[in-house]
Amino acid sequence: MANKRNRTLVIIGGREDKLGEKVILREIAQRIGAGKLVVATVATRHPHEMYEEYEHVFRRLGVHHIAWLDIERRADAMSDRSIKVMEDATAIFFTGGDQLRITSQLGDTPVFHRVVEIYEHGGLVAGTSAGASVMGETMLISGSGNESHRIGENLGMAPGLGLIGCVVIDQHFAERGRMGRLLGSIAQNPKNIGIGIDEGTAIVIEGGRQLYVLGSGAVYIIDGSGVTESNIADGKEGSTLSIYDLKLHVLSQGDKFDLQKRRPGLVSTAEAIHVEQTNGLEH
Amino acid sequence: MANKRNRTLVIIGGREDKLGEKVILREIAQRIGAGKLVVATVATRHPHEMYEEYEHVFRRLGVHHIAWLDIERRADAMSDRSIKVMEDATAIFFTGGDQLRITSQLGDTPVFHRVVEIYEHGGLVAGTSAGASVMGETMLISGSGNESHRIGENLGMAPGLGLIGCVVIDQHFAERGRMGRLLGSIAQNPKNIGIGIDEGTAIVIEGGRQLYVLGSGAVYIIDGSGVTESNIADGKEGSTLSIYDLKLHVLSQGDKFDLQKRRPGLVSTAEAIHVEQTNGLEH
Repeated sequence: MANKRNRTLVIIGGREDKLGEKVILREIAQRIGAGKLVVATVATRHPHEMYEEYEHVFRRLGVHHIAWLDIERRADAMSDRSIKVMEDATAIFFTGGDQLRITSQLGDTPVFHRVVEIYEHGGLVAGTSAGASVMGETMLISGSGNESHRIGENLGMAPGLGLIGCVVIDQHFAERGRMGRLLGSIAQNPKNIGIGIDEGTAIVIEGGRQLYVLGSGAVYIIDGSGVTESNIADGKEGSTLSIYDLKLHVLSQGDKFDLQKRRPGLVSTAEAIHVEQTNGLEH
Repeated sequence: MANKRNRTLVIIGGREDKLGEKVILREIAQRIGAGKLVVATVATRHPHEMYEEYEHVFRRLGVHHIAWLDIERRADAMSDRSIKVMEDATAIFFTGGDQLRITSQLGDTPVFHRVVEIYEHGGLVAGTSAGASVMGETMLISGSGNESHRIGENLGMAPGLGLIGCVVIDQHFAERGRMGRLLGSIAQNPKNIGIGIDEGTAIVIEGGRQLYVLGSGAVYIIDGSGVTESNIADGKEGSTLSIYDLKLHVLSQGDKFDLQKRRPGLVSTAEAIHVEQTNGLEH
C-alpha cells in the first residue's frame, strides 16, 4: 500500500455522471475498495448538500468507509476534529466550487499535509471542477471563456495544491470555450503542459506520470515545449496572444499520455482490461 | 493588373469594425483604390439593408465605384443584369448570412466564373462570416460550438467556392467556441490547414500563399500534416474525437503564415510599413 508508484490522481472536468453508468465515480470507488474515502467540501458554499450527494453515490458504488471533511474556515483545517476525520483515510475527493477556497483554507495546514501524506503513500486524490484545478502547482482562477487571450488581461493564476508538477489544468473545457485562457497560461511558461478537460470526463494519473482518459468527453493536451515565438511578454497590452509551434493532442477514453515523455498513445489491451474491470464496464 | 501573383483574398471572421478604425475594411478599400467593388449580398435575407451599410462604409473609405450584386435566386446569377453588374469589377465583397446560399446560387453560374476570372487576373475577393467560409474548396456549414467533436455527429461540410485550396476556414472562432468542429474537419483530411478566425479579425492572402493577420482578434492555424493517430474513421459513433500530434499556431496582427511552407513568422518592417500604409494606421 505504502507505494509511491501507486499514488493516483483522478482529475475531473466537472459534471461527472452521477446517475447513469458513472464511469468516473465507479473507477474511483473501485480503486478505493475497502479503504476510507474523505469527501472534502471546502470549495463549495453548499457543503451539506454536496456531501450528501457524493456520500450517496459512493455508498451505492460500494465504498463503505466515507467521512466528511467540512471546512468552512481556515481554523477548521487545523482543528483536532478535522485531523481525526483524516485518520486512516486512503482517498480524498474534492468537490467543485471555488478553487481559491480550497487553497486559501488548506494551504500549509495539518489537513493539507495529511492529504500529501496519503497521496505520497500510494493513496488516491480526486477532484472535480474547482477540485480539479487545484491539483497543479499553478492553477487558473479566472479568465473569460469564448475569447482569445489578450496580453495583460483576463487571466488569473494562483498557486495550487501542487500534487502534480508541470501542468496547468482547466475544466469545463470545450463547454466553456476555454482554449484561449489555457493557451495564455501555457504561453506564460511553456514548461507546463496544458490539460483541458471536458465535462463528464476525467484523467487518471498513476505514479505522477501516466495519464488515462475516462468518460464521455475529450481531453486537450497542449505541449508548448517546441514553441518558437510568442508575444506574451512583449506584446502590446490588449493585443491578442500570438504563439507559434504548439503541439496539440486531443484524447478520449482509450487514450493515454506519458507526462514525462510528453507522448500520447492508445491504451493497450492489457491496460484496457484493467480499466474496464476497474470501471465496471464488464458488468 | 492582370497579374496572378497580385490576386488577393481578404477573409474576415465576422463582425468587422465598421465604426472605429475600420482596419480591415480600410485595407480592402485601399487595395481597391480606383477600381470597382461589387458587394454581393447573396448570403443574406436582408440584402437591401446590408448593401446600404457596406456601400456607405466603403464610400467613406474612398471607394467610388460600388455596385450591388443582388442575387435572390439562382436564375439571378445567370441574368444579363448580373453579368452587367460584374463588368469591369476588380473586387467582390461577400457579406455574411448563410454560406449555402452563396454556393448553391452561384456555383458554376456565369457570375461565379466572373468572380474566378476577376480573382485570377489579380483582383480582390473579400468575405465576412458566411462570405469567409465559402472561400475554401470545402466549407463548414454546421457543427455545434462549445463542444468537442463527436464521431459521426454534428459536423456539416459542403463544397465551397474553391478560391483557395487545402484550407478549411471557420469564423466567429473563439467567440463561438469552434475549436472542436474545426478539429473534426481537419481530422477528416489532414491535408487541409484549419484556419479559425475570430470576430473583428481577418486574414489577407496574397498570391494564394502568403497570409497576413489584420484586426483585433486571433487567428488559429491547425496543421494536421504531422498527425500520427486519429479515431475519426474507426471510432465508435458518438465517442469524442481523438487525434495526436497536431501543430497549432495562434496568430495576431503582425504575424504572417506561409501556406505552402506551413510556417508562421513575424511581419518584417518592410511588410509592416506596407500594411500600415494600406490600412491607414499611419494617419
